[in-house]
Amino acid sequence: MTWGESHGSSVGVVIDGCPSRIPLTREDIQHELDRRRPGQSEIVTPRLEEDQVEILSGLLGDRTLGTPIALMVRNKDHRSSAYDEMEHTYRPSHADYSYDAKYGIRAWAGGGRASARETIGRVAAGAVAKAVMRQLCPDMEIVAWVNRVHTIQADVDPASVTSEAVESNMVPTADPQAAELMVEAIKAAKAEGNSLGGVISCVVRGCPAGMGDPVFDKLDATLAHAMMSIPAVKGFEIGSGFHAADMTGAEHNDAFYMEDGRVRTRTNNSGGIQGGISNGEAIVMNLAFKPTATLMTTQETVTDNGCAAILKGKGRHDPCVLPRAVPIVEAMAWLTLCDHFLRQRCQQGTPD
Amino acid sequence: MTWGESHGSSVGVVIDGCPSRIPLTREDIQHELDRRRPGQSEIVTPRLEEDQVEILSGLLGDRTLGTPIALMVRNKDHRSSAYDEMEHTYRPSHADYSYDAKYGIRAWAGGGRASARETIGRVAAGAVAKAVMRQLCPDMEIVAWVNRVHTIQADVDPASVTSEAVESNMVPTADPQAAELMVEAIKAAKAEGNSLGGVISCVVRGCPAGMGDPVFDKLDATLAHAMMSIPAVKGFEIGSGFHAADMTGAEHNDAFYMEDGRVRTRTNNSGGIQGGISNGEAIVMNLAFKPTATLMTTQETVTDNGCAAILKGKGRHDPCVLPRAVPIVEAMAWLTLCDHFLRQRCQQGTPD
Amino acid sequence: MTWGESHGSSVGVVIDGCPSRIPLTREDIQHELDRRRPGQSEIVTPRLEEDQVEILSGLLGDRTLGTPIALMVRNKDHRSSAYDEMEHTYRPSHADYSYDAKYGIRAWAGGGRASARETIGRVAAGAVAKAVMRQLCPDMEIVAWVNRVHTIQADVDPASVTSEAVESNMVPTADPQAAELMVEAIKAAKAEGNSLGGVISCVVRGCPAGMGDPVFDKLDATLAHAMMSIPAVKGFEIGSGFHAADMTGAEHNDAFYMEDGRVRTRTNNSGGIQGGISNGEAIVMNLAFKPTATLMTTQETVTDNGCAAILKGKGRHDPCVLPRAVPIVEAMAWLTLCDHFLRQRCQQGTPD
Amino acid sequence: MTWGESHGSSVGVVIDGCPSRIPLTREDIQHELDRRRPGQSEIVTPRLEEDQVEILSGLLGDRTLGTPIALMVRNKDHRSSAYDEMEHTYRPSHADYSYDAKYGIRAWAGGGRASARETIGRVAAGAVAKAVMRQLCPDMEIVAWVNRVHTIQADVDPASVTSEAVESNMVPTADPQAAELMVEAIKAAKAEGNSLGGVISCVVRGCPAGMGDPVFDKLDATLAHAMMSIPAVKGFEIGSGFHAADMTGAEHNDAFYMEDGRVRTRTNNSGGIQGGISNGEAIVMNLAFKPTATLMTTQETVTDNGCAAILKGKGRHDPCVLPRAVPIVEAMAWLTLCDHFLRQRCQQGTPD
Repeated sequence: MTWGESHGSSVGVVIDGCPSRIPLTREDIQHELDRRRPGQSEIVTPRLEEDQVEILSGLLGDRTLGTPIALMVRNKDHRSSAYDEMEHTYRPSHADYSYDAKYGIRAWAGGGRASARETIGRVAAGAVAKAVMRQLCPDMEIVAWVNRVHTIQADVDPASVTSEAVESNMVPTADPQAAELMVEAIKAAKAEGNSLGGVISCVVRGCPAGMGDPVFDKLDATLAHAMMSIPAVKGFEIGSGFHAADMTGAEHNDAFYMEDGRVRTRTNNSGGIQGGISNGEAIVMNLAFKPTATLMTTQETVTDNGCAAILKGKGRHDPCVLPRAVPIVEAMAWLTLCDHFLRQRCQQGTPD
Repeated sequence: MTWGESHGSSVGVVIDGCPSRIPLTREDIQHELDRRRPGQSEIVTPRLEEDQVEILSGLLGDRTLGTPIALMVRNKDHRSSAYDEMEHTYRPSHADYSYDAKYGIRAWAGGGRASARETIGRVAAGAVAKAVMRQLCPDMEIVAWVNRVHTIQADVDPASVTSEAVESNMVPTADPQAAELMVEAIKAAKAEGNSLGGVISCVVRGCPAGMGDPVFDKLDATLAHAMMSIPAVKGFEIGSGFHAADMTGAEHNDAFYMEDGRVRTRTNNSGGIQGGISNGEAIVMNLAFKPTATLMTTQETVTDNGCAAILKGKGRHDPCVLPRAVPIVEAMAWLTLCDHFLRQRCQQGTPD
Repeated sequence: MTWGESHGSSVGVVIDGCPSRIPLTREDIQHELDRRRPGQSEIVTPRLEEDQVEILSGLLGDRTLGTPIALMVRNKDHRSSAYDEMEHTYRPSHADYSYDAKYGIRAWAGGGRASARETIGRVAAGAVAKAVMRQLCPDMEIVAWVNRVHTIQADVDPASVTSEAVESNMVPTADPQAAELMVEAIKAAKAEGNSLGGVISCVVRGCPAGMGDPVFDKLDATLAHAMMSIPAVKGFEIGSGFHAADMTGAEHNDAFYMEDGRVRTRTNNSGGIQGGISNGEAIVMNLAFKPTATLMTTQETVTDNGCAAILKGKGRHDPCVLPRAVPIVEAMAWLTLCDHFLRQRCQQGTPD
Repeated sequence: MTWGESHGSSVGVVIDGCPSRIPLTREDIQHELDRRRPGQSEIVTPRLEEDQVEILSGLLGDRTLGTPIALMVRNKDHRSSAYDEMEHTYRPSHADYSYDAKYGIRAWAGGGRASARETIGRVAAGAVAKAVMRQLCPDMEIVAWVNRVHTIQADVDPASVTSEAVESNMVPTADPQAAELMVEAIKAAKAEGNSLGGVISCVVRGCPAGMGDPVFDKLDATLAHAMMSIPAVKGFEIGSGFHAADMTGAEHNDAFYMEDGRVRTRTNNSGGIQGGISNGEAIVMNLAFKPTATLMTTQETVTDNGCAAILKGKGRHDPCVLPRAVPIVEAMAWLTLCDHFLRQRCQQGTPD
């Protein structure tokens, strides 16, 4: 459970049900938070003082206690005046209007709960889930990367992509040529005050067969839930995804064969999941991100008392969320897989 | 909660938390079940005796009691011998192997819990959710249709499509020309023992603004969860979906304006949901379905004791699941919306 | 999750999350149901045809599949006319009025959902939980017995009481002298059209240390929840219970010592639970039952349109619920312990 | 959800699902926390600087946002050396051993998660629930009081007792004579290094009829769950409680009558709850508290490596927890009632 508004005093997360005696340090968590921090690549000043996580409970030394782990990151003291216009004017394709419709009140400064700062809690919790899985299922690895920015497509092989390769580029992807083009495109959009969408892909390798529930909490359904809950995600694919619509069964079916005593499939259109349950192959997902809604141009909108208005862009502006979203996607994948691993252990005991 | 294996004695569902005094008849539920029944269009014998729902609890006369509603449909006495080969041989792209990996046992006859008969419970529960919403939110309407079969794309307008138009074609879609081509394509695939994938679209109109939770249980995330839990679904899109990846913010943002005292948007790339919360516009989704895994051709596979095997197709064969999946998609949409409506009423009271 | 009204077509239960490959037969469940059936001891006709359980799903042969287990017991065709008066007249200390206040509708015939028939589902589910624990934790045993009827107190030692001893008496308790007096007292109350309350005690032996959550879902708190949800229960004690109020710390504290390499306590005022977590000692509970509300005498009451009325007793009348409640108490204990055992396995892996 | 160990950096709570626009101030919460703070009455130094609550999220000015409310209280920097002995020696009737059995690790300094400091989160959350109910159900009032300390019984009428009367005594009860005797008894126990148990009673007045679920989440069952989760509680009674065991139905049944157009009962043995659902009468509960386990005398025990040991009492010592537990009991009652109120609104809409 995460909590916190963008311009409240802090944001945080509480993780319940974590197994005890798992090795976990503050640095494990801070490392993941550093990956999602804004402005790392384009701004020289490292601003390393920002987004420092504080562990409030649940650890004794560097091991988990089994009790709830509470993590908190203080917000800086933002000048809310920069956001004064937002108090009464709805920003297009933001959640200002829908929050008002739901709650009749909203923390308008900085976007409140709908701000990207909410994802700090996800990344921190994901770091805990990763530490748990490192201990319980050491062969599992999860890598996400930017697979597309606008029309620029990266060429990355899910079977072999590594975090090191992804993080070696300014845009986190494992195709250096595409990464350069992506940087150019993002800079161009920024110059125009415009923004770009794209696709992030994510692979889970080393997942044991048998994870996932057979009906409502299918592994792919819960991954979709987790990923679609990330701000700006508009689409989710597992395995063949929308391409499956164009295929025949003869093309799509993944033939089984034996390899080293293990059941394998010749192709992986299933994306590692059959009937909602992992089959031991790589789990491959794609997520569509919409372009950032904050623009530096003028836009037509209305106010909260129903008057037409013109919104002028000002302040900071992140023209493409995808580079920062990669660790968020990985965090949600670790959380979902860890949850299914513990559920499987609950019902069926420790997998052999 | 649904229960039941394909070849057990029955399948069913229990719905808890349903408001009391909602008008609901057995016919309301049976009508939806009749829409998902196999073999309606192509086989002359109507087989109306099949899949008769029995109401076990929760109603007094034709009104709900507020207590759990249990619904059951008896399975017919299938000759399991037709499935004998399946006892030890894993069918490619079915859940046979992954179930064995999870449970170490499986109801192999007819696919057990992974059978399409499991969806009977979803459709029956969806009929109850629909009855609740008819009472609590009478303006809401939900229509799903086949938007694509293999490469044949229908031309349907989400703003105006009606259930009547959809159901007037043999393939449930509102584009009669496309429907005819789809029928031809499905017949051709059947003749080859092959199968076809496709896309189902679904629109929710008249949803009040304010439905959905802002962080993990976003309306779109829970819709994705619900839809991806339907067997054979490989992808989910809301609003602009994967097309959002190619767009700039200037193209994608939905400008607000006032119409009849109501906040509206000029475009609907958001798909009716902003920040996870409905904004009052139409909610538009697309779902990718893979081609049916059961083929009438021979396929490479393995047995449950690790030997290579050849699976020969025999028995019945449904070359395209999409026509029967339309009511299942609608049912999952009704269930998800009803759930959010009741949650909103819980936290915020009855919407004005 | 249980479902069913007293005079609907059937009552039932669905159990989700049951481990697979647990040996379980219809007879295991029927045996427990036979123990709660009314009228066994005092009526010669055994009525063995009643309350036959039907397994609707979740088993293959005599082993669990891991998927939901649905169990159903058909209701007999009761003559509802015997209950006509109840349609509009509230029976004192029944749930007639409070149901109407909640739902604005109630299944008045036979008490509907508030009928004792609802406990059939509990007993059936408890039989499944017992089968799971027999497999996963074979040393655990649970015995409940009638410890008091009105002012007649049984003398039973929780450390050594056996089910065989309890079931050998007409009133299920392990003190034959008290049992005879209880039978006399119940017969006398019946002759007067009156009814009697009492106390049921329950012991869990062989529970491994470490079960229970430390804060809200303490083992004793969830046992209290489970036991207080049984109809007619008005009080719950663990260990020293209300007697603890009269004690000093020096009297109450349970000194630790070692026995055969295991941590033991010299006394057991804690009732086997410390800080909400089992410590390996016997878990001992007491439950207060109120006297049956159905009387054969006339009582002052009101109708559902607010008029004063006199309710005359007629029909069948069970002057003391305790004999039949013993298997229900055991069932709730098995369900609660099984739940905690699986949760512990989820978080901490299989206990050593 | 609460979090925090006694000697970690802080303790806290996150409350999700709180309605928006509820008036709530930091002072509302601090006021309740001040009531549970140790050492108020017997120690002159007020130590008012302690246990200051910090609101981390969920409020805008003095109104709730509808998003999660996170509250935190910093722990002071305790000298853990005072607890060194506790690292390896199990304190009798504390949770030291059972935590070790569960987690294989424990925050031994100050009792960790099992410390009374965990209840800070309950009281803070209860203050939020109280603020919600003040707005949604202004007629509801909840008063708890010390009804017994050891053998000293207070004489208090649940129908008329007020918080003012309770708080006017050093031991919070509405019987001044008994309060004086209780103070004497507690002082005497302290002088001996001993401790005392007792009973706290709690009444809910003005609860609308219809709250509570009919089967597992009966209002009384969830109240029992909530109350039994408070540290040191060993027994729970609703209405007639264990006294019901001694009664006949003719004595116990609560006759209905009409008063001012409202259904009332002549007696209230049901304790305001029938069939798990409130009937509009006062809800009356009793809770048995065991004497504090921390003594200033020597006690037999064992160490965590299985050696016999003698524990000598030292440090601070609270000879009777009841005075401080009164606001905790009220908090758990507010939380449970608020939860049922919102659930009822979810299923049935706003009560008339």
